[in-house]
Amino acid sequence: MSNAEQISSKLSQIAEKVNTYIERLMKPRIPITLYDAAGHIIKAGGKRLRPYLVIKSCELVGGDIETAIPFAAALELFHNFTLIHDDIIDNDELRRGNPTVHSKWGIPIAIVSGDLLFAKVYEAIVKGAEYSKLPYERMQACVERVSNAAIIICEGQVLDISFPHVRNVSEEDYLSMIGGKTAALFKACAEVGAIVGGGSPEMVNSLGGFAWNAGLAFQLVDDYLGVTADEDTLGKPVGSDIREGKKTLIIIHSLSNASPEEKKCIERVLGSDDAPQSEIKAVFDLLRDLGSLRYTLEKGKDYAGKAITMLDIFPDTEPKRDLIHLVEYFVSRLF
Amino acid sequence: MSNAEQISSKLSQIAEKVNTYIERLMKPRIPITLYDAAGHIIKAGGKRLRPYLVIKSCELVGGDIETAIPFAAALELFHNFTLIHDDIIDNDELRRGNPTVHSKWGIPIAIVSGDLLFAKVYEAIVKGAEYSKLPYERMQACVERVSNAAIIICEGQVLDISFPHVRNVSEEDYLSMIGGKTAALFKACAEVGAIVGGGSPEMVNSLGGFAWNAGLAFQLVDDYLGVTADEDTLGKPVGSDIREGKKTLIIIHSLSNASPEEKKCIERVLGSDDAPQSEIKAVFDLLRDLGSLRYTLEKGKDYAGKAITMLDIFPDTEPKRDLIHLVEYFVSRLF
Repeated sequence: MSNAEQISSKLSQIAEKVNTYIERLMKPRIPITLYDAAGHIIKAGGKRLRPYLVIKSCELVGGDIETAIPFAAALELFHNFTLIHDDIIDNDELRRGNPTVHSKWGIPIAIVSGDLLFAKVYEAIVKGAEYSKLPYERMQACVERVSNAAIIICEGQVLDISFPHVRNVSEEDYLSMIGGKTAALFKACAEVGAIVGGGSPEMVNSLGGFAWNAGLAFQLVDDYLGVTADEDTLGKPVGSDIREGKKTLIIIHSLSNASPEEKKCIERVLGSDDAPQSEIKAVFDLLRDLGSLRYTLEKGKDYAGKAITMLDIFPDTEPKRDLIHLVEYFVSRLF
Repeated sequence: MSNAEQISSKLSQIAEKVNTYIERLMKPRIPITLYDAAGHIIKAGGKRLRPYLVIKSCELVGGDIETAIPFAAALELFHNFTLIHDDIIDNDELRRGNPTVHSKWGIPIAIVSGDLLFAKVYEAIVKGAEYSKLPYERMQACVERVSNAAIIICEGQVLDISFPHVRNVSEEDYLSMIGGKTAALFKACAEVGAIVGGGSPEMVNSLGGFAWNAGLAFQLVDDYLGVTADEDTLGKPVGSDIREGKKTLIIIHSLSNASPEEKKCIERVLGSDDAPQSEIKAVFDLLRDLGSLRYTLEKGKDYAGKAITMLDIFPDTEPKRDLIHLVEYFVSRLF
């Protein structure tokens, strides 16, 4: 089996357990519409990367993975909460080929569905802690890490909303933004897994650092693929990231390395709804020629390397190898 | 001093302490816009009824009110989170005479501001528990009650969203809806106050029942005032509740007691943007003549009475009298 196939099979095993638990947590009540809407994206699938991080981190510190299942479920609900609100904010009609919650049920129901999932996160944590008689400090630390991640995610979200209106977004600003939008939740997953598993503060911090860097790597590669992958693997038209004016690291790097004319050419196409395909192609060639595509991919690989280094304190065990393979998969995947 | 003046002075005392704590919790970070938007409605004032319920419940069970301050702050943040999302859902441009968060910053920032406050609720609970070394069960019970309230509030919110599309809303449906929209948070406030103060399960339940009934009373009187109060005290045009098509108990009662012609007349005006003032006046007269206004006010008073009965298990002390005065104020207030 290839690395991708192995990862995929391991992800499925954990996904199955977590999905069963999520179903129990999300048992519909009245009004059913709310539960239909809140469960819509969860049921549409997804790789369950975040539960995998929770479970593997718990395992790596020597914890019992059964104890970690409710927490893994909680963090998947958390992820879905952010997706529902994100889709409203980004005005996206489709996610994984399915209509988004707000495009199917309207913005009001979508807002409340996200809120419900957020509340369910804490319900799952309390229930999980109760069931496995988790010591006080661990339960408290979990609530604290999750709430802290939520705060950083909100901050990242607002940075993201503001970027189209900011002329000079720096590389640092961009990293803060994706730190909030992607890495903060990854970090919370690994921390919660390690806390629940009874890891020492050093272990919790190392795993948190691992997941934070892995999250940055994941997002940078995502941005790279958003521009380079073809329409079939991407599920949306090539160049739509450029057309939408997303200020990814690719764009930030290109703008700061372009000649005045090249800069004008890029800025004209960014966020322009009606730029002809030929202009998008010209920008794409520029991004490649300026080295911005390669720069972003390399940066992603750097963070992946940093992530792996963070695991140096742990001996070589299967869960450690699984986490390393996961990060390697992040930077080698094609979609 | 009148009852209203006394209540008002007692509310202010607690509001001051809670506001100071909230300010600390909401210390701005980057991006400032997020903190400006999230703090906007909090700073616009409000009576801080929910913190008052937390503190007085804590006091009534013999707890130290200083311990309860962070929890009172948490529940006020919770309330403000629901207000921000509510205003988006109801498309309201003004609240307490100020622009709503989404009308000032746009829907995306408003959604995230609400989410931030929700995250801060749990941050405040964890910090408060840590600071006062709250025993495990109490901290866990607080998180559980708050999350449970959040779930019921989401359910109530979706019922509310669906009512305009439902022809026959029953009195029972309506009570479930306001239970979720108003009473559930009141209940959580009293429960959390009692839990933090170390009350017995019987005390926690009695105070929860008190606050639930008080919440229903509050909302029923609010609906009554929404139709009967004049423009100056209300802050919005007389009859706007009727024009917006809100299916309050007043409307539900009137529809089930009206003749076919009267029913048609009411239904024509409900939710009609351009109904002339004369038709609104005719509906208002109908609501009065059918006894629907009085019925709603009486029902509110019934719940207030029920609330007060729930406190029978407690001896006559100052915090008990304060809670009784609060409910009496709910049903006697003019705005």
